[in-house]
Amino acid sequence: GNAILSGYGTTIFEAMSRLAGAHNAINLGQGFPDDRGAEDVLQVAARALLEGNNQYPPMMGLPALRQAVAAHAARFYGLEVDWEREVMVTSGATEALAACLFGLIEPGDEVVLFQPLYDSYVPIIRRAGGIPRFVRLQPPGWTVDPDELAAAFSPRTKLVVLNNPLNPAAKVWSVEELRLLADQVIAHDCLAVCDEVYEHLVFDGRRHVPLMTLPGMRERTLRIGSAGKTFSLTGWKVGYVTAAPDLLQPVAKAHQYLTFSTPPNLQAAVAYGLAKDDAYFGLLAAALEAKRDRLAAGLVSAGLPVLPSEGTYFVVADITGARGLRPGEDDADFCRRLTTDAGVAAIPVSAFYEEGAPTHLIRFCFSKQDAILDSAVMRLKEFF
Amino acid sequence: GNAILSGYGTTIFEAMSRLAGAHNAINLGQGFPDDRGAEDVLQVAARALLEGNNQYPPMMGLPALRQAVAAHAARFYGLEVDWEREVMVTSGATEALAACLFGLIEPGDEVVLFQPLYDSYVPIIRRAGGIPRFVRLQPPGWTVDPDELAAAFSPRTKLVVLNNPLNPAAKVWSVEELRLLADQVIAHDCLAVCDEVYEHLVFDGRRHVPLMTLPGMRERTLRIGSAGKTFSLTGWKVGYVTAAPDLLQPVAKAHQYLTFSTPPNLQAAVAYGLAKDDAYFGLLAAALEAKRDRLAAGLVSAGLPVLPSEGTYFVVADITGARGLRPGEDDADFCRRLTTDAGVAAIPVSAFYEEGAPTHLIRFCFSKQDAILDSAVMRLKEFF
Ligand SMILES: CSCCC(=O)C(=O)O
Ligand SMILES: CSCCC(=O)C(=O)O
Repeated sequence: GNAILSGYGTTIFEAMSRLAGAHNAINLGQGFPDDRGAEDVLQVAARALLEGNNQYPPMMGLPALRQAVAAHAARFYGLEVDWEREVMVTSGATEALAACLFGLIEPGDEVVLFQPLYDSYVPIIRRAGGIPRFVRLQPPGWTVDPDELAAAFSPRTKLVVLNNPLNPAAKVWSVEELRLLADQVIAHDCLAVCDEVYEHLVFDGRRHVPLMTLPGMRERTLRIGSAGKTFSLTGWKVGYVTAAPDLLQPVAKAHQYLTFSTPPNLQAAVAYGLAKDDAYFGLLAAALEAKRDRLAAGLVSAGLPVLPSEGTYFVVADITGARGLRPGEDDADFCRRLTTDAGVAAIPVSAFYEEGAPTHLIRFCFSKQDAILDSAVMRLKEFF
Repeated sequence: GNAILSGYGTTIFEAMSRLAGAHNAINLGQGFPDDRGAEDVLQVAARALLEGNNQYPPMMGLPALRQAVAAHAARFYGLEVDWEREVMVTSGATEALAACLFGLIEPGDEVVLFQPLYDSYVPIIRRAGGIPRFVRLQPPGWTVDPDELAAAFSPRTKLVVLNNPLNPAAKVWSVEELRLLADQVIAHDCLAVCDEVYEHLVFDGRRHVPLMTLPGMRERTLRIGSAGKTFSLTGWKVGYVTAAPDLLQPVAKAHQYLTFSTPPNLQAAVAYGLAKDDAYFGLLAAALEAKRDRLAAGLVSAGLPVLPSEGTYFVVADITGARGLRPGEDDADFCRRLTTDAGVAAIPVSAFYEEGAPTHLIRFCFSKQDAILDSAVMRLKEFF
């Protein structure tokens, strides 16, 4: 097999879900909701399946969905987007990211990344011939050191990958931080690929600010969104890339050979979903915020202090002083033991690092029924 | 953008479908059926959508579908397949192919290919760092020259890509030809990636023989199938790779970062579909065979002689003596003019070549309602 890809294991999300299944553990590892998803969106998908077209949709996506993506960007972020030239549908955000990276990177290009990072970024960047340059976010606040940021950029930087809101750190980037990043991107005449799949999952009255909306960034940014987290349908794998025509074109060249297109009935349903009223998006965030509070309080009461969670499905706990932690045990071992012995699966934060990982942090997913969250807390308390 | 991918245009299928749409032409270009697809499979998909799980399925695919793929291989080809270790579901055959190529190729590896070839192969191979080595099939019989075949292999050959049945040539590889190929693969200790999406669309009593079934090839072959052509649902993008565990593992490493997974309700429906009785598969082929005969006869009566079509959705016509062909006009120009002026879209066979393309052949898709095929023939007759 290819040496770069073979060097990586099975993705931690899959591995922990398998372990959780094998041990009948409550799965607070892999990030997905355990409800049915947006009911009306499901209905539209079923109708489109039975009454609509199931043959190849256009390679760029159904016009209805591309229009909806553009309208959504206008409504939430004041972005003016030409749906015909600036929006492409992909088979999930993962494919969107792969298309951006394979489509834009030339072997030898440098790519700036923030650790912790989602685990598909680096393998694809390296497979595309890119060279990762890491910037470390410092827990517990996951702050950026401006000097370290500046040092990561060079004349060979092709692009930076930003995940905002940030999984697993549950960080929502501030406008000041985004500005710092934009300054570097503009100064080095490079690009930004923004994975914003958690855009609607931000809490405590925060607003998600796409990097694309910052001055000078409209023509330098590729913005990735997805239906999975916005409609609680993570299995659908419907994503979208929004970017200036010059940037989108090379990405479409990759997309057409990676998957070519995405099931049309799901596209139609997501088009419907993106046009839902503001109340839908507000209630989604509010419901998750309440779940965050519930699980965070439970973890604290079980003796696991938590870091701030500003968005996403996740809350990170500090296991440093946890009762039940064995001497020398790291986050990965502890997560495995929690899964097999306590019956609660979590994800070690070290899995989001290529190098120099902290080993005292583990990630819990709170997008679950309240009763499940409560049971998980109960199990942890019994275990400790 | 990346130099390799940017060098390729928008895929010919998309380009011709757009042109056909703009000019209200009958679209016999891009290969897809114009019916609703297998009705019971649609119903199962709708039920799974409304009553089943819409969150992330396992990265390797739903067990039900992987079991069905294994059972299908046993039933039709006598292959023994361990569904847990030897089957992976992908987001269509295009992604399956990309995962195989990115997962197996090491930069500098050589890849043997037959021209004419499907247009995603070479861009992905080059992007993966591979070096294509072409073998030319000679029309009208699309025969292989054994010496040319032998010359294409070298100690640097990593794998051969075989499309069987072959789009656009409508060729079903004979066992003798497959044996010739297998000999080379075994002699050079390399692999075969077999795109067999048209496996059930073979005519005149022919049987499709997977290269994987030849002696010595079970452990060297990655076999790709797909629901699109088997259930007349080309928009679904549900594919599968079958291969020995050692081969599948590196491919799964690529898949997990390319798309990760595929909509579970569509997977459930395809699992159901693959278990349909033999009559379904027989009638599918018989119906297409009748359509092939209908369109072929029509093309001949319109003055376009056709090459044999042994399988797939396609029949190739020779435009050499066509009335209406302008001096110096090649297949691509002629196809564009047929679309805009005659109101019938076809695909130039030269689009399936990297080099040395014939310019006298065009491909028609016959998986359309009889009335549509008849109208197309009428339009061609009027035009000539
Ligand atoms: C593709 S499975 C990973 C789901 C996810 O985004 C996460 O758990 O972080
Ligand atoms: C992915 S669109 C191409 C469809 C097809 O297989 C063909 O027309 O050859």
